[in-house]
Amino acid sequence: MIIILRADATDEQIEHVLERIERLGLTAHLSRGTYRTVIGIIGDEAKIAVAPLQAIPAVAQVVPVLPPFKLASAEAHPKPSIIEVGHVKFGGGYVGMIAGPCAVESREQMDAIGSAIRDGGANILRGGAFKPRTSPYSFQGLGEDGLKILRDTGNKYGMPVVTEIIDPRHIDLIHEYVDMFQIGARNMQNFVLLTEVGRTTKPILLKRGMSATVKDLLMSAEYILSQGNPNVILCERGIKGFDPETRNLFDVAAVPAVKAISHLPIIVDPSHATGRLDLIPCCALAGVAAGSDGVHLEVHHCPEEALSDGQQSLRPEQYAQLAGQIRDLVTLFDKKISPVGEASQ
Amino acid sequence: MIIILRADATDEQIEHVLERIERLGLTAHLSRGTYRTVIGIIGDEAKIAVAPLQAIPAVAQVVPVLPPFKLASAEAHPKPSIIEVGHVKFGGGYVGMIAGPCAVESREQMDAIGSAIRDGGANILRGGAFKPRTSPYSFQGLGEDGLKILRDTGNKYGMPVVTEIIDPRHIDLIHEYVDMFQIGARNMQNFVLLTEVGRTTKPILLKRGMSATVKDLLMSAEYILSQGNPNVILCERGIKGFDPETRNLFDVAAVPAVKAISHLPIIVDPSHATGRLDLIPCCALAGVAAGSDGVHLEVHHCPEEALSDGQQSLRPEQYAQLAGQIRDLVTLFDKKISPVGEASQ
Amino acid sequence: MIIILRADATDEQIEHVLERIERLGLTAHLSRGTYRTVIGIIGDEAKIAVAPLQAIPAVAQVVPVLPPFKLASAEAHPKPSIIEVGHVKFGGGYVGMIAGPCAVESREQMDAIGSAIRDGGANILRGGAFKPRTSPYSFQGLGEDGLKILRDTGNKYGMPVVTEIIDPRHIDLIHEYVDMFQIGARNMQNFVLLTEVGRTTKPILLKRGMSATVKDLLMSAEYILSQGNPNVILCERGIKGFDPETRNLFDVAAVPAVKAISHLPIIVDPSHATGRLDLIPCCALAGVAAGSDGVHLEVHHCPEEALSDGQQSLRPEQYAQLAGQIRDLVTLFDKKISPVGEASQ
Amino acid sequence: MIIILRADATDEQIEHVLERIERLGLTAHLSRGTYRTVIGIIGDEAKIAVAPLQAIPAVAQVVPVLPPFKLASAEAHPKPSIIEVGHVKFGGGYVGMIAGPCAVESREQMDAIGSAIRDGGANILRGGAFKPRTSPYSFQGLGEDGLKILRDTGNKYGMPVVTEIIDPRHIDLIHEYVDMFQIGARNMQNFVLLTEVGRTTKPILLKRGMSATVKDLLMSAEYILSQGNPNVILCERGIKGFDPETRNLFDVAAVPAVKAISHLPIIVDPSHATGRLDLIPCCALAGVAAGSDGVHLEVHHCPEEALSDGQQSLRPEQYAQLAGQIRDLVTLFDKKISPVGEASQ
Repeated sequence: MIIILRADATDEQIEHVLERIERLGLTAHLSRGTYRTVIGIIGDEAKIAVAPLQAIPAVAQVVPVLPPFKLASAEAHPKPSIIEVGHVKFGGGYVGMIAGPCAVESREQMDAIGSAIRDGGANILRGGAFKPRTSPYSFQGLGEDGLKILRDTGNKYGMPVVTEIIDPRHIDLIHEYVDMFQIGARNMQNFVLLTEVGRTTKPILLKRGMSATVKDLLMSAEYILSQGNPNVILCERGIKGFDPETRNLFDVAAVPAVKAISHLPIIVDPSHATGRLDLIPCCALAGVAAGSDGVHLEVHHCPEEALSDGQQSLRPEQYAQLAGQIRDLVTLFDKKISPVGEASQ
Repeated sequence: MIIILRADATDEQIEHVLERIERLGLTAHLSRGTYRTVIGIIGDEAKIAVAPLQAIPAVAQVVPVLPPFKLASAEAHPKPSIIEVGHVKFGGGYVGMIAGPCAVESREQMDAIGSAIRDGGANILRGGAFKPRTSPYSFQGLGEDGLKILRDTGNKYGMPVVTEIIDPRHIDLIHEYVDMFQIGARNMQNFVLLTEVGRTTKPILLKRGMSATVKDLLMSAEYILSQGNPNVILCERGIKGFDPETRNLFDVAAVPAVKAISHLPIIVDPSHATGRLDLIPCCALAGVAAGSDGVHLEVHHCPEEALSDGQQSLRPEQYAQLAGQIRDLVTLFDKKISPVGEASQ
Repeated sequence: MIIILRADATDEQIEHVLERIERLGLTAHLSRGTYRTVIGIIGDEAKIAVAPLQAIPAVAQVVPVLPPFKLASAEAHPKPSIIEVGHVKFGGGYVGMIAGPCAVESREQMDAIGSAIRDGGANILRGGAFKPRTSPYSFQGLGEDGLKILRDTGNKYGMPVVTEIIDPRHIDLIHEYVDMFQIGARNMQNFVLLTEVGRTTKPILLKRGMSATVKDLLMSAEYILSQGNPNVILCERGIKGFDPETRNLFDVAAVPAVKAISHLPIIVDPSHATGRLDLIPCCALAGVAAGSDGVHLEVHHCPEEALSDGQQSLRPEQYAQLAGQIRDLVTLFDKKISPVGEASQ
Repeated sequence: MIIILRADATDEQIEHVLERIERLGLTAHLSRGTYRTVIGIIGDEAKIAVAPLQAIPAVAQVVPVLPPFKLASAEAHPKPSIIEVGHVKFGGGYVGMIAGPCAVESREQMDAIGSAIRDGGANILRGGAFKPRTSPYSFQGLGEDGLKILRDTGNKYGMPVVTEIIDPRHIDLIHEYVDMFQIGARNMQNFVLLTEVGRTTKPILLKRGMSATVKDLLMSAEYILSQGNPNVILCERGIKGFDPETRNLFDVAAVPAVKAISHLPIIVDPSHATGRLDLIPCCALAGVAAGSDGVHLEVHHCPEEALSDGQQSLRPEQYAQLAGQIRDLVTLFDKKISPVGEASQ
């Protein structure tokens, strides 16, 4: 950590800063420049928080040298992690294909979609049972009935399943039914939820919050890892931007930016990132070309009847065509897609 | 609701859209323009969701005419609401003065701060007992011990108290100790938490999320109101911006923008909005001049020893000076500040 | 155009709006809904501006039905345009490869870079002679000497050349030396410059401004087209975002978003978009996978000696490797790259 | 300047960095920490640019210690500057009142508005003669005829005048007619224009660009100052944000943020910042409460007939009422407003 002092810092103030650092068992290294005095701190940065130092009047700026996350960092784990969801791999050369409707609506709907996406090229089935809707007057999900349908459909078509958790009191219930928990963008900094899922050993699909930086995302992953669960898959799904042309701003550079500092796999979700059916295929391919470890897509057999997110759902035949193009790219980049499993029902 | 069709929409497609609208018991009103065909929908807009309509291929754009929130709207309740927290009023000409440390750290700390801010001009005491920290390695709060200290300090100095709730399982515990629940910015779209606090009757301080629009904020208020709790106070605390000069971007225009479409009071929190001690006073005064119904400020008697947010905490003497300037503005604008109460301990 | 009236609009006010519309020779179409009255305007939308209508007290919202640009729109020209820069094609299945240093520094530097990128796979040479530097104390470019070196190097290696224009008084000078003018991001709404280059017939490389929406970018293209010059190539080079992880936010979805509404080619510039050497290759490939009609990259044979933008310049061997991967993608998507020309010197 | 090296930097690489620094006549100060090695540079930071250092492979981060602007900094000139426009003062306790229409449309229009705002409380008259319109099909201004009308109206009512310059070739023409040049937001980084106006001695009203940070704004001011013109007044007029509730995002915290690091006066323009008539008064008062040295407001006697920006123009009676409230605030804060001058016509 480096502390840059104000130009008008007095000797007494500098002395005060040095004392505080040394009281913490750290070594301070003073450099008096032509214009500014700078203190380098040598020792374990974790002993000292940025905030209180900035509250000292003589301090102009505090520059951390290490990232505030450890377990998620590439320094802790230099090789890319491979996370397994059932038999399906993400990361380290494997590209996962997650697809399904926004919400589980009925057994018939899930069967139609599950069958179609399996044939189209998906290897993980998604579907929401508890929906975080921005309006209290919107469809909120089927709850446990939805979980059962999701599980049964996954079994029937040999695909592990993932669903979103929004309430820490649902942890045992959902744990029983799914292969992966999803933490949605709006809950990326719901630390209560992060702690709960961190105490399980199931893989976690952690979506980036709309106002989260890449480092914020890794900090939320760190929450889960610090509880003992190493199985985190990150997901870029669009952040807030100023252009209403797309619902969110698809930050494709986040894919290599995460890989530069972390070992965790990261996938892309162009459905939520763009909110526009006509842009999803191009953005999915862009994500894979940028190095994404997976693609998450919303698919519905009848988008205009969907109870949520119809405007951004691909039809099964659109999905199959896109999945074919993704496979070509995956091959070009010498990567692999895990096959679907045996039907277990 | 208005539906703008694509330039290439066929008669058959237009017919399909009209049928869907009429099946819902609504009246469709077709206008064929020189370049585009437009359908106006007459009837209760709530019967029809935007999303599925946008999934129909012939539809270019869907323009809602009514805001998606009702109970929070100025149309539902044309006069400004006055919300009472204990004996302290917010809105309709009353300006509330909330102050206190980021986190409750000890009985001595709270006594020192409580006494000082009461003398300085605050009428509500804040303090965190369960902290939503971005790092799993940071101080997480004193829990129930913190709630007790907060309650006792409030009683001793005649100030109602407010604390943040982050876990729906804490609702009964916190309910016992405080006069107002705070929903933090990171939980503004934690719909589980919004529903829980909506089932109580205590006032709710709802902070704007960092990526929330003004309408998103009102939609979250609607969640609480729709559960039966009418006592919501909104809070502008800075949104995401691109300039690192301040921690967040203080959107002072949100104050009159909320008042233009809602009856709910809105206060400002310049401590979190700017994250810079030297900018807080100017931004607090700006908020009051813009019509804010209250000011929320972090105060600590020894910021550099604070366990969290030290760099944005005013010292008690800085708070007293600023509170005096706020009082002058409140008087200039013909508004009032509720007095502190009797010590009840 | 659709005008949504305020809920409290009086009959007299509605009458006033109708009169104004009809005075302009347009037909107004009134729909009185359950909650709101709406007026559809039939006729040439260009006759009426949005702004003055919004100034009428009874008007709540004005919704344009047509985009405000015409010549740049896909409706005006349904097939993708192919723009030729010398013998090199962009758009309609052709991918252009622009490369070179940020600034022309010397004849030796340009020769080293020009030779290397030609061998690496570029077909257009770039180099700045007049630099728009944010600091008045930075290197401002070699001026006409730089233009001569650029021209000679392009001739020697058979590559058409492009340079940025920043001053309308340079139009004739630069016209003499280059095959394409570049309008930089900071000048995207410099309407004086847009008008000047619009009066030439040389192709224009128009970079998206950092705070420009996709429609703003097309509106600036419209400026050029409206002066009679149809040869505009758009360029996505990163917009303002809140995450300091990258210098700008690479909006890869802008590529298909532009193609959905315009016939103009659009290329990507990952050098400026990310500002980080380690992210450039992934973002370049992402751009091509998203459908980009070209790739613009900064290359320098000795980045740490570069007089500007050294930290985002690829070394020639890095460029050659990336260009090879781009070619593989171009082949996969059944597109083409124009070959370099004969040396003409 | 501080250079943080990568964790894997070799001794040879560190030696290379040290050599480069010393070749420039600077002193390098090496600190080897537990996790990272850091180099402090002592001497004149201006000798070394950030960019090329970042291009060296072993370098992780370069942290400048001094701001890149000098003449505009508070360190160069610790007391606030007072800038005089004719007899009207801005800064150092003086609040300027600039008002007028977006565009000069006719002599009658300017007379009606000039007379009304003088009575209402303005002391500087604004009006555009050359308009930077986003659409090539919009009204572009009256040119020199507009300048004459502006000058005559200012003389008649004793108010200095300001107009926007958009073309460097207009510098002499506009110089003849006005008391202050305005550089619009879209031209804040038009360095050609900044250089031209920097060679005059007339005051410059420099508007903040929509994607400019506070430091970018000061860097553009530095351009003007570095040419010899010390008379720069900055203007906060809204930056890009994600909420469509307001046209731009009014960054009121920029007012004290500028004052913390610069001696230059800064005013606010709530008309452009919000684009909404109903929010302008609250935001104008917020700006003054935050310490603004002036208020810039668009006023039109008949907004719905205005040729531009009608929807954000106050009517004269609205202006007079708001100006009265501003005067009350100015008095409360112990500041002054320069009186209007004698009619000189």
